[in-house]
Amino acid sequence: MLSFECDYNNGAHPKILKRLLETNEEPLSGYGADPYCAMAKKKIQACCENTEAEVHFLTGGTQTNQVVIDALLTKYQGVLAAETGHVSLHEAGAIEFTGHKVITLPQREGKLAAETVKQYLEDFYGDESHEHMVFPGMVYISHPTEYGTLYSRKELEELSAVCREYGIHFYMDGARLGYGLMSKGTDVTLPDIARLLDVFYIGGTKVGALCGEAVVFTRRNTPKHFLTTVKQHGALLAKGRLLGVQFDTLFTDYLYRDISQNAIEMAEVLKKIFREKGYRFFVDSLTNQLFIVLDNERLERLKSQVKFSFWEKLDEEHTVVRFATSWATAMEEIEALEKLL
Amino acid sequence: MLSFECDYNNGAHPKILKRLLETNEEPLSGYGADPYCAMAKKKIQACCENTEAEVHFLTGGTQTNQVVIDALLTKYQGVLAAETGHVSLHEAGAIEFTGHKVITLPQREGKLAAETVKQYLEDFYGDESHEHMVFPGMVYISHPTEYGTLYSRKELEELSAVCREYGIHFYMDGARLGYGLMSKGTDVTLPDIARLLDVFYIGGTKVGALCGEAVVFTRRNTPKHFLTTVKQHGALLAKGRLLGVQFDTLFTDYLYRDISQNAIEMAEVLKKIFREKGYRFFVDSLTNQLFIVLDNERLERLKSQVKFSFWEKLDEEHTVVRFATSWATAMEEIEALEKLL
Amino acid sequence: MLSFECDYNNGAHPKILKRLLETNEEPLSGYGADPYCAMAKKKIQACCENTEAEVHFLTGGTQTNQVVIDALLTKYQGVLAAETGHVSLHEAGAIEFTGHKVITLPQREGKLAAETVKQYLEDFYGDESHEHMVFPGMVYISHPTEYGTLYSRKELEELSAVCREYGIHFYMDGARLGYGLMSKGTDVTLPDIARLLDVFYIGGTKVGALCGEAVVFTRRNTPKHFLTTVKQHGALLAKGRLLGVQFDTLFTDYLYRDISQNAIEMAEVLKKIFREKGYRFFVDSLTNQLFIVLDNERLERLKSQVKFSFWEKLDEEHTVVRFATSWATAMEEIEALEKLL
Amino acid sequence: MLSFECDYNNGAHPKILKRLLETNEEPLSGYGADPYCAMAKKKIQACCENTEAEVHFLTGGTQTNQVVIDALLTKYQGVLAAETGHVSLHEAGAIEFTGHKVITLPQREGKLAAETVKQYLEDFYGDESHEHMVFPGMVYISHPTEYGTLYSRKELEELSAVCREYGIHFYMDGARLGYGLMSKGTDVTLPDIARLLDVFYIGGTKVGALCGEAVVFTRRNTPKHFLTTVKQHGALLAKGRLLGVQFDTLFTDYLYRDISQNAIEMAEVLKKIFREKGYRFFVDSLTNQLFIVLDNERLERLKSQVKFSFWEKLDEEHTVVRFATSWATAMEEIEALEKLL
Repeated sequence: MLSFECDYNNGAHPKILKRLLETNEEPLSGYGADPYCAMAKKKIQACCENTEAEVHFLTGGTQTNQVVIDALLTKYQGVLAAETGHVSLHEAGAIEFTGHKVITLPQREGKLAAETVKQYLEDFYGDESHEHMVFPGMVYISHPTEYGTLYSRKELEELSAVCREYGIHFYMDGARLGYGLMSKGTDVTLPDIARLLDVFYIGGTKVGALCGEAVVFTRRNTPKHFLTTVKQHGALLAKGRLLGVQFDTLFTDYLYRDISQNAIEMAEVLKKIFREKGYRFFVDSLTNQLFIVLDNERLERLKSQVKFSFWEKLDEEHTVVRFATSWATAMEEIEALEKLL
Repeated sequence: MLSFECDYNNGAHPKILKRLLETNEEPLSGYGADPYCAMAKKKIQACCENTEAEVHFLTGGTQTNQVVIDALLTKYQGVLAAETGHVSLHEAGAIEFTGHKVITLPQREGKLAAETVKQYLEDFYGDESHEHMVFPGMVYISHPTEYGTLYSRKELEELSAVCREYGIHFYMDGARLGYGLMSKGTDVTLPDIARLLDVFYIGGTKVGALCGEAVVFTRRNTPKHFLTTVKQHGALLAKGRLLGVQFDTLFTDYLYRDISQNAIEMAEVLKKIFREKGYRFFVDSLTNQLFIVLDNERLERLKSQVKFSFWEKLDEEHTVVRFATSWATAMEEIEALEKLL
Repeated sequence: MLSFECDYNNGAHPKILKRLLETNEEPLSGYGADPYCAMAKKKIQACCENTEAEVHFLTGGTQTNQVVIDALLTKYQGVLAAETGHVSLHEAGAIEFTGHKVITLPQREGKLAAETVKQYLEDFYGDESHEHMVFPGMVYISHPTEYGTLYSRKELEELSAVCREYGIHFYMDGARLGYGLMSKGTDVTLPDIARLLDVFYIGGTKVGALCGEAVVFTRRNTPKHFLTTVKQHGALLAKGRLLGVQFDTLFTDYLYRDISQNAIEMAEVLKKIFREKGYRFFVDSLTNQLFIVLDNERLERLKSQVKFSFWEKLDEEHTVVRFATSWATAMEEIEALEKLL
Repeated sequence: MLSFECDYNNGAHPKILKRLLETNEEPLSGYGADPYCAMAKKKIQACCENTEAEVHFLTGGTQTNQVVIDALLTKYQGVLAAETGHVSLHEAGAIEFTGHKVITLPQREGKLAAETVKQYLEDFYGDESHEHMVFPGMVYISHPTEYGTLYSRKELEELSAVCREYGIHFYMDGARLGYGLMSKGTDVTLPDIARLLDVFYIGGTKVGALCGEAVVFTRRNTPKHFLTTVKQHGALLAKGRLLGVQFDTLFTDYLYRDISQNAIEMAEVLKKIFREKGYRFFVDSLTNQLFIVLDNERLERLKSQVKFSFWEKLDEEHTVVRFATSWATAMEEIEALEKLL
């Protein structure tokens, strides 16, 4: 059956598997101390155009959020996030598991405004009883957001400025970063991100890898004994080569860029089809996730022919669903979907 | 200076200190295994008119919330609370510290509606991805709420019914329970609470004790090895007699009832004064906390003559402040305040 | 350079990579809900000869220990382990990170005796103040142990009997289980383990996989909402296929057995060489890890020609080192090493 | 019945209760911001002869250990303690509850030798795989120890030197500090402790108070936002006056010194009696706890006439028991006990 369910339903990009095969026989040191990890780190650092950037590899998105947030926050601090943020809703309490509160703030189309953050921080420090509250120690954003929307460079600059004013960390969850960078509607580059954020991750799992996320600390600010912290969280992969080889491949010959672009192009075609056929968009996504409002009858009909994600009930008769393209989506699949719509 | 700052600015009721003196020389076993704890437990159980009620003593409110919630929740569960709830805002993340998320829900005048809770639970179990979310394992309410408001018996019955339908715990933070029970606007009795809630606590710190809260598990549902859990949280008092003697005194000859009544009566008089003088109420409190809207000029003037609590900024020109009466408030203080207003 | 450093220096068994390639194009559901996970689980269950066995896949060893122990223990419980156990020493406090104490007991050659455990439990419950102590809730053993030694079936039966008598979980860390099962010196089979233990894991990372461990709950005792617990620990792999395909391959056509046997055979040859050349063994390992006592001069000489692991300083002049064979070790490597010795 | 069970079986020193009564009517700010806390802090600081000393009050011993250790340790650090230390054994895992491992070291008569600590630290940093282990971040000692023994000034200096060499915190659990300071066998003064330790606490609960411990950070090293950390642990007392008044009283007119001296003098008399009657000492305690070896027959006989503590089984026929004197022990009690022996 045709599937637009999500962007991690396929395996890995063939070049990654090829490279795993080629390097398979080499005996390599574990825990990330292998040459592939080293090469991948250098290539990512170069793409960031930031000589202070330090790169580390982890296995999955929730794990990365948990480890990075816990490693950077002081024990009495929490993290500010949009109420729709992945850490707020869909990580089974992985952040609270480490003792930190996710302090949720109102959002618009999945985005957190600098003004909202600033107001919260002002009110917090203005409140006489704030010592009885969780100190805000970080701002978490996802880019693209959970709704496929993107921050503009100006918005990131404003958020960055607020964070620096208050001395708190600014962190970006880039599970789908590739799709954000290749969006036709963005003015944000990887060097921008490496300049404006204190830490972010470049998602592999949803962009062509079997697993793996590359965390970038942008100002030589890797927390002390980070490897130990990773181990303590049960997140240290013995065969670090699995992550090193994958990211080395993704950052060789622009592979990460090119496969991200495929997802965007397929999404653009699909968007046009939806629009022409009169479908209603729930939000104007600029990336590889399209949120469509379906009446329930059509929903039932489509469900038997193509896989997509249920997002939320809009009202008694309408439902929001998500169609996701990915690095692996082929034009034939789009055409097949077009016929069904 | 005159003080209506809060209800824990005074020491203890004199009868409590007298009793501590009288029993001081007796060598008693520690950790709650003394006869005063035993007597106090029996008296509280009797007042609850519930033979299945089991009583335990802890030292403070946040500690009690932390220990009770952590002891009852399974590791992957969180607690549902009003966004204005004490556990949501003013406990420095003490709940998240134990690994549990506080899932905040919209409130009205500090209260959580059964309908709101039911809708959340329905949506949660209706969401296909709920296994990636924190399971709701308890409903937390405060009674009186942080705004001095009260649940009606019907509202508690409805909340209780929802909790039982979904098999989750129903817990009441009764830091100011005495004031709630003696309010003229309530139809809720202690036996009602002991029937409808799974667990609640009777606040001592804010109602005449030096420290101490009495936790009541209402259906022989004290968690296994609760003493060990209390110890693990650093919450086990060596000289349990300090808590036993205080609660034994409070529950002898209706002392808890009578001193709570004093706070209510003083609040009623004060309310009348505020009303007659044309002050604006922010919320219609039924208990010992009155929330008044002051213009900033008057705020500044009053501040130099009487202590009260800043609550929140209403707009550029107005501020919400709180005046609290207590078990110790004397009519002379009210009269002195009247002159200032 | 020749490497006997450890058993996870090679990539994956070629059949695994081949299978990943073959299945790569299939769109599959995430989080373990794919047919390869399902097939692998069935095959493992069949090998366990236990219809009550439930199988789950995780990514690494420390992660597995952390998730399993935390999922099974009540909050006030700790885990009993040999003072040399992996959870006691080399997991950066991953168990304590989840709030649980590792209660260490004396060992012999890395093994915990039933008598030692029984004595501890008797003393614990005999101690009047045990409610002020961490309750023992599980016995953790590694098999093979950190010293390459093995429990006999009788020893496992005795430990199992003690655990059942006291109603605590019996858990085996099988990071190198394949090597244990194929040892010439063992009378323990996989069905024995699935009968005597409450939970154990079959290590993939050190036995031919790129990553992955298969947890087996042996009496339909998977903790409720285990997937949520895994997610909460940041341990849920989005592309569960990576684990499913690997374990499906390992448990097809006896691959797991055969490659484990290779490590054992190579270790036997190497052991003979060491013995013939008069090397001193620190412990009589029955599996793929050989612990050799070297004088420091020879240590320095060898270090420049072959990779092995430093284990511990024995005295001023001698050091214990470890040579590990693996599923990938070839006879040529053994021969090359022989020349060096 | 005569009781030598422990040193917290009595209420409070009468002067403390008197002072609580005298100050009871004053309305005071909560959470430690009252003048009695301020006065008590100044007096304690003066006794420490250390102008950099900062004092904070907590309610109980385990709570204090938990809060102080958690507040000072980095997340990936653990605390080194004697295997007989209170934090190692009798706090129900309160330290692990906050995510930190208690790394236990061998002891002699309850004491940790500087040499033992130094060796551990050297081995730790000498171990290539130490990044996979818990980093030692603090040395915890109790003084007097759990066996009533005392460190000499020289021993404290040596431990302090090791801690500074390795840049880790040196912390003393002074639950019974008064008895240690007044021991006839000590050369350690409070200023010595305030000079050599980074943090310690002066026990109130076991030395005349109803509850309360005074934590002293000796080099202006109170952790940032310590009040918030205390609140987060559920350890912030609303009516801080309860602690302030008690410690202010204990540190007025040498009360703490004098009542501690009473316990020591009573213990000396009792020790002489035991010795004269030919009782065997398990350890040579210098403070208020005497550890006596009883044959089981005599144990049974005594048990029915006087309360004391079971300590440990020595062999089949002998048991170690503890007799504790306290600030409240009267000569009549000693004489009554003498008759029974």
